Amino acid sequence: MADEITVLSPATVSNVVCGFDCLGFALGEPRDRMKLRKIDERTVRIVHLDEFGLPVEAERNVAGVALQAFIREAELPHGFEVEITKTIKPGSGIGSSAASACGAVVAANYLMGERFSRAQLVEIAMAGEMIASGSRHADNLAPCIYGGFTLVRSSEPVDVIELDFPDLYATVVHPQVEVKTSEARAMLPRAVPLKDAVKNWSNLGAFVAGLAKGDTDLLVRSMIDTIVEPTRKRLIPMFDEVKVACIEAGAIGGGISGSGPSMFMLSADEPTAVSLDAVIRTVYANTEFDIKTYVSGIDRRGVVPA
Amino acid sequence: MADEITVLSPATVSNVVCGFDCLGFALGEPRDRMKLRKIDERTVRIVHLDEFGLPVEAERNVAGVALQAFIREAELPHGFEVEITKTIKPGSGIGSSAASACGAVVAANYLMGERFSRAQLVEIAMAGEMIASGSRHADNLAPCIYGGFTLVRSSEPVDVIELDFPDLYATVVHPQVEVKTSEARAMLPRAVPLKDAVKNWSNLGAFVAGLAKGDTDLLVRSMIDTIVEPTRKRLIPMFDEVKVACIEAGAIGGGISGSGPSMFMLSADEPTAVSLDAVIRTVYANTEFDIKTYVSGIDRRGVVPA
Repeated sequence: MADEITVLSPATVSNVVCGFDCLGFALGEPRDRMKLRKIDERTVRIVHLDEFGLPVEAERNVAGVALQAFIREAELPHGFEVEITKTIKPGSGIGSSAASACGAVVAANYLMGERFSRAQLVEIAMAGEMIASGSRHADNLAPCIYGGFTLVRSSEPVDVIELDFPDLYATVVHPQVEVKTSEARAMLPRAVPLKDAVKNWSNLGAFVAGLAKGDTDLLVRSMIDTIVEPTRKRLIPMFDEVKVACIEAGAIGGGISGSGPSMFMLSADEPTAVSLDAVIRTVYANTEFDIKTYVSGIDRRGVVPA
Repeated sequence: MADEITVLSPATVSNVVCGFDCLGFALGEPRDRMKLRKIDERTVRIVHLDEFGLPVEAERNVAGVALQAFIREAELPHGFEVEITKTIKPGSGIGSSAASACGAVVAANYLMGERFSRAQLVEIAMAGEMIASGSRHADNLAPCIYGGFTLVRSSEPVDVIELDFPDLYATVVHPQVEVKTSEARAMLPRAVPLKDAVKNWSNLGAFVAGLAKGDTDLLVRSMIDTIVEPTRKRLIPMFDEVKVACIEAGAIGGGISGSGPSMFMLSADEPTAVSLDAVIRTVYANTEFDIKTYVSGIDRRGVVPA
């Protein structure tokens, strides 16, 4: 067995419109690079090759905590050193912490002869996600590890459903503002009127059917979120303007990525996805907000060896 | 064009567990028989060949109101006489009024050269459903007209999604008790805690995916309703006992049909569905409750010429 491996770990979009807290997908770009090496000492050493200034103490680092959980679960007598080159900016809302946690545990699993299933790896990676977000949730971990569109039916126990889906393209914009997770969370309603909940699950059922059928029109009709978006969108500068302009320009639909500030738009073909990038840049052109954008297909592989 | 047609209109199950107010399917049995004949007078005449004592005045009869709506929408100069032989007992919770409304409008549509789409027929039939239930809803109308599993994403405007699904079998039990629609409706929560709503839409998304994939295990895991069933099941004698016994005997899952009092159970094969019939009879054997049961495949055709 090899003692060293380098993996690429994708950014992910969670809370996909009507799929709040369960539906996510993996992006082709951006991806973090992580090199993992077995070391004799039963510990986790972290080296950052990027400029994000994340903690190097294992117990304060998402990848570190995930690797500690892996060592514990696998009852390993040794440890790991990990060199991390993040390109997914922490706090961007496209699964930066999930990419760290998943990259670490999938890499460790490769080195250990793939002893854990993907569902088990999600479970182990949740320890890392926990220190980043303060809650055990698998919405970003699942698409990061499985690739594609995933539905987390349950996180205790982990039940991840890989959805069938047609080729789709994502345009992501990350306005360079900070969204405090605590603030985004405080905006969630505690309860939802039954009729709004019914609308939402009708739309999610329709969206899942639309993915399975490859029915783009159905995706257009069902990409509606009346539960979370109406309040949380206030945290995202130019949200409505971006959405309206992108849909006019041919997007299937889109919304908040995770709890923001990133937004995503889905397109049926790559030229449209590329054109949305320009549309979005135009929206922000006369504002004070800096943005970063990404255009890619939906990743179907999850964390892979580099 | 023919002046007369006889159609068979299937019973339907709505509120399929996690698909409250949107998910339904059509049963192979029981089915109503309706013979429709063009008459010169621009009116609707109703003849009952069954013992249910339903109204014969068109404006008080579900099929009558649906036909009046059809005549209006199609701007017909003539009317219809309809002979109805119901076998689906009114108030049973398996779409008796939907079968009347759908049978009537689909038959009329055949006689008029199929001028309306199925979605339009659902829209027209809603007038009939309205007088039976007091609300415009398409949950039973959609599977009755389309056959199979349907998801009503929206009823205004009507947006029916035909779901892909594997061969499945239904065992239905109708305990001979009366459930007042008003009472069943009063039991519905006005609002749902967000985390319960999330669980429900995760399960519905998973159920739709399970149908599309033909993944029976996934159907088993996702047939959970923590929103409506916990309260409404009190209206149905022996609900828990039936459910537990059927699942032990190999059912995929099941729940309340419509707003009761019927219950349904799904099975992956016909012998299991038949065996559940005996299981259910045993549950009620030492009780005061009379029951009627039906075993059939899921109907894939909806209303058809006899």
